Amino acid sequence: MHQVRRYLEPGPIVLVSSHWRGRSNVMTLGWHVVLEFSPSLVGLMIAQGNHSFGMIRASRECVINLPTTALTDTVVRIGNCSGATTDKFAAFGLTPEPASAVAAPLIRECHACFECRLHDAALVKRYNLFVFEVVKAHVAPSPKHPQTLHYTGDGVFMVAGRTISRKSLFRPEMLG
Amino acid sequence: MHQVRRYLEPGPIVLVSSHWRGRSNVMTLGWHVVLEFSPSLVGLMIAQGNHSFGMIRASRECVINLPTTALTDTVVRIGNCSGATTDKFAAFGLTPEPASAVAAPLIRECHACFECRLHDAALVKRYNLFVFEVVKAHVAPSPKHPQTLHYTGDGVFMVAGRTISRKSLFRPEMLG
Repeated sequence: MHQVRRYLEPGPIVLVSSHWRGRSNVMTLGWHVVLEFSPSLVGLMIAQGNHSFGMIRASRECVINLPTTALTDTVVRIGNCSGATTDKFAAFGLTPEPASAVAAPLIRECHACFECRLHDAALVKRYNLFVFEVVKAHVAPSPKHPQTLHYTGDGVFMVAGRTISRKSLFRPEMLG
Repeated sequence: MHQVRRYLEPGPIVLVSSHWRGRSNVMTLGWHVVLEFSPSLVGLMIAQGNHSFGMIRASRECVINLPTTALTDTVVRIGNCSGATTDKFAAFGLTPEPASAVAAPLIRECHACFECRLHDAALVKRYNLFVFEVVKAHVAPSPKHPQTLHYTGDGVFMVAGRTISRKSLFRPEMLG
């Protein structure tokens, strides 16, 4: 699952989609962390105030979708309304596509989508931290370096810039 | 602690410094997550193979230092040697400065330094996840948008790019 490191470790804002009892929802999330490579584990801090919290806790699944600057306004609008009163897929023109391993939908307009099953709910009570296993990854073939959004608070995002390689300075076992 | 969100939520590589029994050490780390604003809690996934793991577990303190592209080669070299055999501050010309609330040193060459005390070790056993409280923040007055490093695996870093504001699309209570 090098795609998980490739796209999530740099710390982008993501859109987390969920499905429960015939309804789909999506939330904007910036508080996530890679925890393990094999199995591929990712921690998501989902505040209880989110409508998605109950849907994800009940369904024990989600999809982590990676938006780019093409979706900047949509990312903000998703984060500023509630799935309790808004069908966000319809309201924001997002296209839900069937996932292969979970009921939560992929978002077609995103660069990458990671299907996740709940691995461990033990940290939810204390920190609202869900530990998910990524069971299937979908990544668009281009662009190679998508312009991801990184939230800095106060309504401001940093956009992913250039890339630089220091591969020659790494010990072989540290790469990958 | 809006400085914690400002600098850590975008997902940069950080240098974690520690001090135990008269020795200081520093490690490169990319797996961190903001968990709470008040108190200001941050989770750090510190793999047990790191020399820093034992020092931080014993001292229950660390400093999270934020490097920029001025330190790219140093960041990589720190991550590719061990504090068990190398005095990294001396080897890489880093300047340790006294912190105010912890014994671990600040790194003068970094843009920001966050002094941390261990808040919760309960997640260390299962996930090597240390939950720290940021008790003191030091941030350089300029530049306003430092060129932080974001690791994508395989020896390649994404460098922080331009910033864009969508403040006008946020509900007031979502800002800050």
